[in-house]
Amino acid sequence: MIVEIISVGTELLLGNIVNTNAQFISKELAKLGMECYYQTVVGDNPDRIKGALDVAFSRGDMVILTGGLGPTKDDLTKEMLMDYFHKEVVLDKKAWEMMKERMTRSGFTQFSDSQKKQAYVPKDSIIMYNHNGTAPGCIMENNGKYCMLFPGPPKEMQPMFKEYGVPYLRKFSDKVFVSMDIKMMSRDEVSVTIVGEGPCAERLGDLCDNENPTVATYAKEDGCLIRITAAAQNRDEALKIIEPILEKCKKALGEKYIKKIFEDK
Amino acid sequence: MIVEIISVGTELLLGNIVNTNAQFISKELAKLGMECYYQTVVGDNPDRIKGALDVAFSRGDMVILTGGLGPTKDDLTKEMLMDYFHKEVVLDKKAWEMMKERMTRSGFTQFSDSQKKQAYVPKDSIIMYNHNGTAPGCIMENNGKYCMLFPGPPKEMQPMFKEYGVPYLRKFSDKVFVSMDIKMMSRDEVSVTIVGEGPCAERLGDLCDNENPTVATYAKEDGCLIRITAAAQNRDEALKIIEPILEKCKKALGEKYIKKIFEDK
Repeated sequence: MIVEIISVGTELLLGNIVNTNAQFISKELAKLGMECYYQTVVGDNPDRIKGALDVAFSRGDMVILTGGLGPTKDDLTKEMLMDYFHKEVVLDKKAWEMMKERMTRSGFTQFSDSQKKQAYVPKDSIIMYNHNGTAPGCIMENNGKYCMLFPGPPKEMQPMFKEYGVPYLRKFSDKVFVSMDIKMMSRDEVSVTIVGEGPCAERLGDLCDNENPTVATYAKEDGCLIRITAAAQNRDEALKIIEPILEKCKKALGEKYIKKIFEDK
Repeated sequence: MIVEIISVGTELLLGNIVNTNAQFISKELAKLGMECYYQTVVGDNPDRIKGALDVAFSRGDMVILTGGLGPTKDDLTKEMLMDYFHKEVVLDKKAWEMMKERMTRSGFTQFSDSQKKQAYVPKDSIIMYNHNGTAPGCIMENNGKYCMLFPGPPKEMQPMFKEYGVPYLRKFSDKVFVSMDIKMMSRDEVSVTIVGEGPCAERLGDLCDNENPTVATYAKEDGCLIRITAAAQNRDEALKIIEPILEKCKKALGEKYIKKIFEDK
């Protein structure tokens, strides 16, 4: 199962906000051991969203979308997607009751069509109810292609992803990814000629070509980081795979230049 | 000139870091009045980077890439791109001198091949020298397709973009975008039934369908925001286009519910 992330929002495209949704979902996917090779950002434009979907489904089996579920005219993602997945559109009574209750608490005494629009969902799909906002999310499937649609605001998306997304995705994953990080001392403590990313990578040599676990170096302001990541059936097995490579890395890097070693969670 | 942004980095794909580079560049492009409809994130994998480039160039004329210029084995973007643009690879003496000087200041007494690799650049291209790190950036052109390549670390990318990127891009842009924002009072001050995004959008009605300037509503934690954006030859002309629509919006929204009106810069 190869997953792609599409974040919908003209605000993202104009640089008004930073894409924390893609980061959050990527992290969750990595923990679940799911493969994700591309993230895309596209504006609130149905044709371009469709273009992004075509590209994503040409490379993967599942697309996780955020944004485009709101009550305003430019929030068109859901309509576009229900059409893309050939889904009939039905009113979800539970979602509508939840929305009305929420809006009544906020002081609304009557509800507009544009508000009600949010309670329309694809038929024969999984509906993800929203306990932190109005628009429900949904999971659609058609011909082996999957799409998960979440609201854009992080305070709505994140709990919904944890409640519905993670358990749903877990059944597609047969492995977990576990990472151990080696944090080198900083350039202020030891010469950069020893603890810089370049010198560290040189000392690691072929270890950086290892496949499972992988070994990657990252230049960080507060000192180079070496990440060893294993894919396995479970955490214990992953740690067992990591162990011998971690020892080789420690030796190659020089233990006295290592600040700490910890699991990346 | 349609531009796309590709951010290269497995760290982005794993959610270890958030993509502030795409936000920064998007904001600069918007200020320059350049059209950008997609942002993509891809890992440090030459085949997938090539795939992302193919997709981007099928939709646009210019790709701005960040990341993949470092000294380690997984930083392969530049090699891949010089090949993609059929560019001969040459050592840039000035870049190599600058790098050696910088590395000498950091305490290096000898330089490795992987460090020198960063000073190899595409022939017949614009080289963007790096005053805040080692790897230079470059601008390549081939058959009317353009590619700008910047280093990944924001503290290197941002000043390089301002120094070289903005003046280079300006010649492709025949217009500027100017936005005026109407900030509504918050839900704590006035009922959400009046100042929520839904009710505001309803009152604006057809104004939200306007083309130049565009009118868009955004739900924000501290109160709904209405953004009026005009494309014009210069700022004065843009402000003139915005004026009558701004007046209509103020009337539709109700002046007493508006907290402030300001230019978005």
